[in-house]
Amino acid sequence: MKYGHFDDSKKEYVITSPKTPLPWINYLGCESFFSLISNTGGGYSFYKDAKLLRLTRYRYNNVPYDNNGRYFYIKDNGVTWNPGWQPTQTELDSYACRHGLGYTIFESSKNDLAASVTAFVPIGDNCEINKLTLKNNASTEKNIDIFSYIEFCLWNAVDDSSNFQRNLNTGEMEIEPGVIYHKTEYRERRNHYAVYAVNAPVAGFDTDRDTFLGAYRSPSDPEVVEKGAATNKIASGWSPCGSFQLKASLKPGEEVTYVFVLGYIENDKNDKWEALNVVNKKKAHEMLDRYKTTEQADAAFKALCDYWDNLLGKYTLETEDDKLCRMVNIWNQYQCMVTFNMSRSASYYESGMGRGMGFRDSSQDLLGFVHLIPDKARERIIDIASTQFEDGSAYHQYQPLTKTGNMDIGSGFNDDPLWLIAGTSAYIRETGDFSILDEMVPFDNKTELAKPLMEHLRRSFNFFDNAKGPHKLTLIGRADWNDCLNLNCFSDTPGESFQTTGPSEGPVAESVFIAGMYVKYGNEYADLCEHIGLNDEAGEVRAKLA
Amino acid sequence: MKYGHFDDSKKEYVITSPKTPLPWINYLGCESFFSLISNTGGGYSFYKDAKLLRLTRYRYNNVPYDNNGRYFYIKDNGVTWNPGWQPTQTELDSYACRHGLGYTIFESSKNDLAASVTAFVPIGDNCEINKLTLKNNASTEKNIDIFSYIEFCLWNAVDDSSNFQRNLNTGEMEIEPGVIYHKTEYRERRNHYAVYAVNAPVAGFDTDRDTFLGAYRSPSDPEVVEKGAATNKIASGWSPCGSFQLKASLKPGEEVTYVFVLGYIENDKNDKWEALNVVNKKKAHEMLDRYKTTEQADAAFKALCDYWDNLLGKYTLETEDDKLCRMVNIWNQYQCMVTFNMSRSASYYESGMGRGMGFRDSSQDLLGFVHLIPDKARERIIDIASTQFEDGSAYHQYQPLTKTGNMDIGSGFNDDPLWLIAGTSAYIRETGDFSILDEMVPFDNKTELAKPLMEHLRRSFNFFDNAKGPHKLTLIGRADWNDCLNLNCFSDTPGESFQTTGPSEGPVAESVFIAGMYVKYGNEYADLCEHIGLNDEAGEVRAKLA
Repeated sequence: MKYGHFDDSKKEYVITSPKTPLPWINYLGCESFFSLISNTGGGYSFYKDAKLLRLTRYRYNNVPYDNNGRYFYIKDNGVTWNPGWQPTQTELDSYACRHGLGYTIFESSKNDLAASVTAFVPIGDNCEINKLTLKNNASTEKNIDIFSYIEFCLWNAVDDSSNFQRNLNTGEMEIEPGVIYHKTEYRERRNHYAVYAVNAPVAGFDTDRDTFLGAYRSPSDPEVVEKGAATNKIASGWSPCGSFQLKASLKPGEEVTYVFVLGYIENDKNDKWEALNVVNKKKAHEMLDRYKTTEQADAAFKALCDYWDNLLGKYTLETEDDKLCRMVNIWNQYQCMVTFNMSRSASYYESGMGRGMGFRDSSQDLLGFVHLIPDKARERIIDIASTQFEDGSAYHQYQPLTKTGNMDIGSGFNDDPLWLIAGTSAYIRETGDFSILDEMVPFDNKTELAKPLMEHLRRSFNFFDNAKGPHKLTLIGRADWNDCLNLNCFSDTPGESFQTTGPSEGPVAESVFIAGMYVKYGNEYADLCEHIGLNDEAGEVRAKLA
Repeated sequence: MKYGHFDDSKKEYVITSPKTPLPWINYLGCESFFSLISNTGGGYSFYKDAKLLRLTRYRYNNVPYDNNGRYFYIKDNGVTWNPGWQPTQTELDSYACRHGLGYTIFESSKNDLAASVTAFVPIGDNCEINKLTLKNNASTEKNIDIFSYIEFCLWNAVDDSSNFQRNLNTGEMEIEPGVIYHKTEYRERRNHYAVYAVNAPVAGFDTDRDTFLGAYRSPSDPEVVEKGAATNKIASGWSPCGSFQLKASLKPGEEVTYVFVLGYIENDKNDKWEALNVVNKKKAHEMLDRYKTTEQADAAFKALCDYWDNLLGKYTLETEDDKLCRMVNIWNQYQCMVTFNMSRSASYYESGMGRGMGFRDSSQDLLGFVHLIPDKARERIIDIASTQFEDGSAYHQYQPLTKTGNMDIGSGFNDDPLWLIAGTSAYIRETGDFSILDEMVPFDNKTELAKPLMEHLRRSFNFFDNAKGPHKLTLIGRADWNDCLNLNCFSDTPGESFQTTGPSEGPVAESVFIAGMYVKYGNEYADLCEHIGLNDEAGEVRAKLA
């Protein structure tokens, strides 16, 4: 069974059936605003941190697969369908999903009506844009109702999916013509809100999920869509959503385009309000003004494409092997950049609720993108090193929003310190920028404990002076590179974490993998010492490794 | 709109439409095995602890409402329906849901086929029984396919809904004719498994959710039901489920009854296996032998009804006001018992993931059931007091499974200590059992710190010697009785808990409510002192309160 193919000329992967065995997803966003988007329009958006600042609600491991996304219901002559097939699952006459570099395009048709949705996060802005175009290919006029739909997450994805006693009571909205503001907790503990808008006069809106869907219904058959009339209800508590109803009359051959924006707006603490309980919308209006017209949206899309062309233009392999070129020149570099952008903090398997950025992961990922974005690689090294402890060990993960170590996971993964040497060494070999070693970097995120980065590397290496086991090999701690070698798989304590060093094996278990790293990156550390004239130290290091 | 009515003669609430505005639920289980069950058959089961030992998977705040439960698909002449309406939502010819004391009965019909499901947790056993009866009321023979369906939770409800990298790879099953064993993690870190069985020859079974439902489908239209043929697939990883296919041929007027059992089995650590990687099924077989026949199931149901008749017979109010009698004699006492059984640890708003049993809640709940089950009230007081700290403060919540304080929530709710006096005092006034005050009770769950319960009460009262504010009123700490008076609603720290004492108000904020408790329960404590001859101490206490 074939579900799609590569289109190398456009640097796209084209999926030709919505019914892939599992959702096949793309990642939108290159800076601070990110979205996951599947080949049926599923997924969610977040600002910097998939756990703490999630804009839209997604349901992992749900049935049907891949519940919730940015959906458009097209109601044409009594038939309701979606350009991405889900959630109505109405059979389409044609369907294509083009996962490109930082964007995804749907091209579908039903009963001589063609729909195209271009979804992307523009460079330099904190929003996802959905450009929807409908074209009447029939020989008679069509009168169409369009309903958009997203469901808001109440920001903290963990609370959102567990603390119902609280979160069913907190939802708050504001409305302007064609603009929905989701401002839950803005008054109490947040200086940010979400804005959802369309650049055309609307026939109505909905903001209360249960009203829009109807009792015991789902996004597969919303009651409002069935009835064909938005309710203009403003949600208070329960589950806030965003939906616009638009009406289009299209003559044969005529087309219409709408630009939808889902944005994240942060206000200065002292500038939160424009009146009592009325959020300051200045920045939201400015954002929406940037995407008021199709031309503006198209220009932003072109800027995104130029950004990727430029980035991937830095390194090009030419061979006669198309598949090798495709892998090296497009998808491997793209994947490295996505990994830089969100580490492994959110995917369709990683729920975005727990881990944040990995110390180990982010360090080793550097090797894949240092040639593309050396400046950002430098910044990343310093962020990572800032979560190291004074003894050379490190928080295993840190929250991208706060850049502080994640206490829930804690430390004790003994490969971590050596990955810092690996990443820094790779950065210097690519850039020649030895000045990074003099950069003052905090320990444990405390600026008063800052030391030059070189001192961090020194402590990474020296950490193992006191972390060797009975065979003089490096201790594994909680895990080495392979998390599946988890030492605490066996436990008698209900609810005990899988990643805690057990009292029995913990103090003696050694890792051959870390020992190999110790030698490899110990030597790279010695090389760095020699390069900056610390020949004695280099000698001592190599003596330990001998 | 009227959805139901009380049936006092049967001590039931009868719901006459499945489409209640929200799910209306009942609680099954009186000892260690518990289930939530809605008026459409939704809900889930757990053993002792809704977070750590959840047997079946439930999806909170999902759409359609109330996803997952114990479902029976009845396929009769091409039409598939459920006795509880969900999940197919096929319109029924008749429907009633009877929520009784510890049981729920569905009585439905469609196309002259009548179905009845009696769901209950028997006294003295760790299982939920579903007795399904089908009767052919048509004038011709019917050939019916029945498919049952549950989805297993991988025990820890938090991991189950967040750690997909791990839990999509761990599911393990074993099969016997008519019996499905869910044994995920049994080898590594558990000595318990779930068993799901039916007391009749089966036409087939399914254990892999995605196979049973089909891709992009949901319990509303399982592919296996549509095709009419179980696949006999044994799940390995992904999402284990349990489904049996049964075939029944019913002549006009004929009926058939099946007994389904979902049970929890715990084995001795040294007796886990009957062969390599084959779980020891002895206890499971013994359990299933207890519900092999309809008569056995009926006897267990009668024992449950007798249990409740006896319990509620201890106190009976007779007045001419039916509603007052109904409230006092049936539903208020029932509710108090349910609260004793599971505190507020799991409901359709409380996700069962976080809180466990509340120190405050369980103390005050005592007042409602001490006359029904004084022995268990005594045990509960000692469990609660065991989570108190030496300074008189207490863990705000504790896990029912381990009975140890919940570190995630921690302490600092200053009303807690006084509720211990309230509960103990109420227990002694009801029972006259002063011996409880001499019971040795740990502090902080550490037996080496055990002191007589009277010393716990003393420290509860004396806690406030150092916890008064600028007006000499008691400090509120993190909250008083009203959690909504939360002091930390306003926060600048991303992801900060709602229940942490802020640095600004924390040290000075006083609670008039706790001050009232201090006087009321301080005097009750002084009364206790006098009763056991501590007149000097009683005088000192009353002096502090003057």
